[in-house]
Amino acid sequence: MVGIAVVGYGYWGPNLARNFAETEGAAVVMCCDSDPRRLALAQKRFPALICATDFDDALRNPDVNAVAIATPVHTHYELAKRAIKAGKHVLVEKPLTARVDHAEELVTLAEKNGVVLMVDHVFVYSPPVLKMKELVTQGRLGNLFFIDSVRINLGLFQHDVNVVWDLAPHDLSIVDYLVERLPVSLSAYGGIHADHEIEDVAYLNLDYGAGLIANFHVNWLSPVKVRQMIIGGSERSLIYNDLDVDEKIKVYDRGIEVGEDLEQRRKTLISYRSGDVWAPNLATREPLSRMAEHFVTCVKTGQRPVSDGKSGLRIVKILDAAQRGIKSLNGRVNI
Amino acid sequence: MVGIAVVGYGYWGPNLARNFAETEGAAVVMCCDSDPRRLALAQKRFPALICATDFDDALRNPDVNAVAIATPVHTHYELAKRAIKAGKHVLVEKPLTARVDHAEELVTLAEKNGVVLMVDHVFVYSPPVLKMKELVTQGRLGNLFFIDSVRINLGLFQHDVNVVWDLAPHDLSIVDYLVERLPVSLSAYGGIHADHEIEDVAYLNLDYGAGLIANFHVNWLSPVKVRQMIIGGSERSLIYNDLDVDEKIKVYDRGIEVGEDLEQRRKTLISYRSGDVWAPNLATREPLSRMAEHFVTCVKTGQRPVSDGKSGLRIVKILDAAQRGIKSLNGRVNI
Amino acid sequence: MVGIAVVGYGYWGPNLARNFAETEGAAVVMCCDSDPRRLALAQKRFPALICATDFDDALRNPDVNAVAIATPVHTHYELAKRAIKAGKHVLVEKPLTARVDHAEELVTLAEKNGVVLMVDHVFVYSPPVLKMKELVTQGRLGNLFFIDSVRINLGLFQHDVNVVWDLAPHDLSIVDYLVERLPVSLSAYGGIHADHEIEDVAYLNLDYGAGLIANFHVNWLSPVKVRQMIIGGSERSLIYNDLDVDEKIKVYDRGIEVGEDLEQRRKTLISYRSGDVWAPNLATREPLSRMAEHFVTCVKTGQRPVSDGKSGLRIVKILDAAQRGIKSLNGRVNI
Amino acid sequence: MVGIAVVGYGYWGPNLARNFAETEGAAVVMCCDSDPRRLALAQKRFPALICATDFDDALRNPDVNAVAIATPVHTHYELAKRAIKAGKHVLVEKPLTARVDHAEELVTLAEKNGVVLMVDHVFVYSPPVLKMKELVTQGRLGNLFFIDSVRINLGLFQHDVNVVWDLAPHDLSIVDYLVERLPVSLSAYGGIHADHEIEDVAYLNLDYGAGLIANFHVNWLSPVKVRQMIIGGSERSLIYNDLDVDEKIKVYDRGIEVGEDLEQRRKTLISYRSGDVWAPNLATREPLSRMAEHFVTCVKTGQRPVSDGKSGLRIVKILDAAQRGIKSLNGRVNI
Repeated sequence: MVGIAVVGYGYWGPNLARNFAETEGAAVVMCCDSDPRRLALAQKRFPALICATDFDDALRNPDVNAVAIATPVHTHYELAKRAIKAGKHVLVEKPLTARVDHAEELVTLAEKNGVVLMVDHVFVYSPPVLKMKELVTQGRLGNLFFIDSVRINLGLFQHDVNVVWDLAPHDLSIVDYLVERLPVSLSAYGGIHADHEIEDVAYLNLDYGAGLIANFHVNWLSPVKVRQMIIGGSERSLIYNDLDVDEKIKVYDRGIEVGEDLEQRRKTLISYRSGDVWAPNLATREPLSRMAEHFVTCVKTGQRPVSDGKSGLRIVKILDAAQRGIKSLNGRVNI
Repeated sequence: MVGIAVVGYGYWGPNLARNFAETEGAAVVMCCDSDPRRLALAQKRFPALICATDFDDALRNPDVNAVAIATPVHTHYELAKRAIKAGKHVLVEKPLTARVDHAEELVTLAEKNGVVLMVDHVFVYSPPVLKMKELVTQGRLGNLFFIDSVRINLGLFQHDVNVVWDLAPHDLSIVDYLVERLPVSLSAYGGIHADHEIEDVAYLNLDYGAGLIANFHVNWLSPVKVRQMIIGGSERSLIYNDLDVDEKIKVYDRGIEVGEDLEQRRKTLISYRSGDVWAPNLATREPLSRMAEHFVTCVKTGQRPVSDGKSGLRIVKILDAAQRGIKSLNGRVNI
Repeated sequence: MVGIAVVGYGYWGPNLARNFAETEGAAVVMCCDSDPRRLALAQKRFPALICATDFDDALRNPDVNAVAIATPVHTHYELAKRAIKAGKHVLVEKPLTARVDHAEELVTLAEKNGVVLMVDHVFVYSPPVLKMKELVTQGRLGNLFFIDSVRINLGLFQHDVNVVWDLAPHDLSIVDYLVERLPVSLSAYGGIHADHEIEDVAYLNLDYGAGLIANFHVNWLSPVKVRQMIIGGSERSLIYNDLDVDEKIKVYDRGIEVGEDLEQRRKTLISYRSGDVWAPNLATREPLSRMAEHFVTCVKTGQRPVSDGKSGLRIVKILDAAQRGIKSLNGRVNI
Repeated sequence: MVGIAVVGYGYWGPNLARNFAETEGAAVVMCCDSDPRRLALAQKRFPALICATDFDDALRNPDVNAVAIATPVHTHYELAKRAIKAGKHVLVEKPLTARVDHAEELVTLAEKNGVVLMVDHVFVYSPPVLKMKELVTQGRLGNLFFIDSVRINLGLFQHDVNVVWDLAPHDLSIVDYLVERLPVSLSAYGGIHADHEIEDVAYLNLDYGAGLIANFHVNWLSPVKVRQMIIGGSERSLIYNDLDVDEKIKVYDRGIEVGEDLEQRRKTLISYRSGDVWAPNLATREPLSRMAEHFVTCVKTGQRPVSDGKSGLRIVKILDAAQRGIKSLNGRVNI
């Protein structure tokens, strides 16, 4: 039985608690939060839970094998570091940390201490993303040409992070899972409105090399909610619409046919192939449940998590570069 | 009666000919094309038309008051210049020219020679764009925060221009019409695939100053066709979906309420207003017909066209800057 | 404090229990179910609950002021009758009873005993239906011409009732609430497939008089889920799409303009008015919560419920007539 | 070369003329219309056309091998009869005639005179309907359970026919083509509004036997345009949405799994199968062009047309029965 302490019982903590409580082989034994009112809620929901305002109580508790950290981003590093040093396995909410060096340190520390470090990139455990991974791995899309990701809505402004740190980790972790490499470079820009001091609209343009470019639009000011990713490939393309109840993934067997003759190609004698559209049936299991189960399996078996510390580090590296890109005016062309 | 010579009877020329033929006060008297087979088509359609492979025939013909140029982009400058010098009024297909200095020269030359120079930015004569202009002018959207434009499809590759020069002029001219100013700066990036030497996917990020950023996605490789523009404002937002038969414009009375108290604002005590959605009824008149009528009116009255040479010049300036932005790697952040 | 016994803890009972538990002025004091395993679930969820397999325990309990019956349809009459006779207020799941005479008897009995008899026509407490009622009452739609209702999906087959008794009460109760009268007559037909003995597809055609016809399509075999009602009126029309997250109600300011001249009318000189579309913002409160609150208010104040026994009786009358219509072949035209 | 006379140059005649003019092996030699203004339009469009106000001119002209009749419905019988007697092949706009006995007479007469009699059921020549036919024929849907057809819009009122005769022939001819048999019986009802004397909303319920029921909703008062047909089968289901630009046909590999055990079936132990969705790529050829070509082929080869006189007769039989069903109140259940 893997004993788990949920750290932070705010927006996401209750979801972690519920899912770990329902995971075979796991037990939620403690909950930590600096706010006694939040702890009271947790206690009501889980009468047998040990509740504590002091994180050290969890670290000292021998029944706690692992901590699940769902606190504000800027606290992740300190809490995770102390947990790892105390020999606890660690699950951290995305993004892993607020700084690249902090993420690197956690990865190194976890390896040294032989504990699991996993980031809750929950989308990589969701049925549509698993299907996309399968299609990409099987080569069904051919060479990837472009990825266009849109995650916009009339949003909940975050107090501590901008729209990039709030929304982009989801999409960046999905693409990271699909292509399994860091982008080579990026440019980014954002807008600040509504009397804020943080970006509420932003675009990231990532160059993954080998002809693959990816664009990410994240936005807290959109009148409509969109959760969509278009992936264009040499063989097929797909659209992942997370808001479509029935057809989250649609595969398009259409594309560009390039003639064999080099001379012809120069002349752009290209035709278009229009083909079938296919929406594969997807499992309906809750991603968070699958994520929780995977964490417990990794703790028990020593298996490396799909969303391990290194993938968390890659996402933090991109977020950090995006931040610098937005602040910089280098490379913009005057008109 | 304004006598018109249609120059170039390829993809767009027949549309110009048909619309001018149906415009009161105008007559299509000549058609020029270097390809006799195209001229034969024109002749069959309009038996009374004078057809010529030599452009000078049109310039010499006293019945020709104006020329409508629908030839490849790189020929616009030369043809327009000669027409202006011959005292003809000129309508040019978008984009006005392939070079900024050429566009500037045409603008100056037309003023000097007292002829109308107009660019066929056809969308600024379309009912949904006219409605957007009305809403923006009346302040119904408040301050503009962001514009997100998407024009993607599985495209017809152009031989002579990339996807930016092919598709973006439409959206750039719409935004130009709405905000009536040049952007301050831009960054742009694009991708080349399918054995081409020209970009088939591109993103432009424009900073219009005063808090307004605009992003343009143009793409010839998308499995689906999208023609959409989201405009986010401080009072209201709107979505323009040109493919929606019934509700091309939807106005969202929802947004962000910022408290009065400065201290509160710092703490991001912001709430969201969810309101009605309204799809105004739009006229159904064909934009090209309205454009043709406007050109004829300007020729007759000396009125300055809405899409005059200067607006054409502004679009060419942006396209030129985008081209430089795509080719440059300055300002990209390494990861 | 209104003490409530939830009777039947199957599919819907837990929802009633949860909502009454959260309703001010109400307390869920007992739960009855013939299946001890269901009671165990209720006990776990509400530790203080008195659980009983014998319905009489609830009737004898002086802390129980009202019973909420969520058992199979064929048991409603007997349970409700005994509760009314014991002086308890009664909420019954839709449909009220399986027979018209039973429903009539319950209505009479409840009046005689001075207790509230209410049916859980939950949709009449939902924000979109309340908005429709407002629009109809204000005359915004003008005279109602037709109602077209579609409630189809790949369904959960019911053991004891056919698709009409399962799905149609929702839509019939919505229309009953809007027009506040019984239809004059109906025709109905249905199909039996999949080795069943009960209808899985059915259509009801109701004539409400005064020019209003209403058609209801209910279906357990549809590959897609649809929840839609079109209401056509002389002034405006509306579409209620319960699956649209953002725009459940859309009002169309379009219709038919009939000329004044009688002679003209004969000649059908009619024109079409195309107008704006408007999607009013709707409250987001859960209908079941509002229904529970309304029941508690009626119990406390003696107010007549919106979905009172008489409305329940009207729905049962229609269902009963539909059943006869489906079984009869009278009036079908041979071909 | 098949010489064709187009009879009636109103709404549909010009489409027939254009398509026959473009059909290989055919020539439009004459046009007849009682209105000289309509003839003038035809003459302008086709300078070589012989135009006549007298239908007999066409019958006397030896260059006319076939007539294409696009006049009001009540004139079809007389014109077609005279043409057949004159030895001309005949294409008639849908519906074939206004009376069943007239249609029967035409079918007999055409056989006796050895001429082709074809009805312009244009949808049976359209790519999506051809694909549906292929799927049904191959047994991909299994046994057909239900067909639900909706053809509604804010309509053009017809002067001479009601909404059933105007819109339903399209859908009835599609279903006739798919199932190749007459329905056994029908019930129908309709509503009259807007100061008319003809039905503007109607529903037809057809029983095709063997478990297949079909419902048709036709409506001139709907605020939105819908062109949709759902076909539910034992193996798969499909949705045909003629307004979907990209995915007119979607096949759903989902349905009901019935257990083998009879006892189990009684207990309705049924599970649902959720499967892939597939939108086959469809040809883009204009149906009317294919229809014209097919008529010319039949005239040349003596081949029986897909939409022959007998299929036209079947549709008229259904329309006639529907008319009687609407007018009758037999079989309606009073409430």
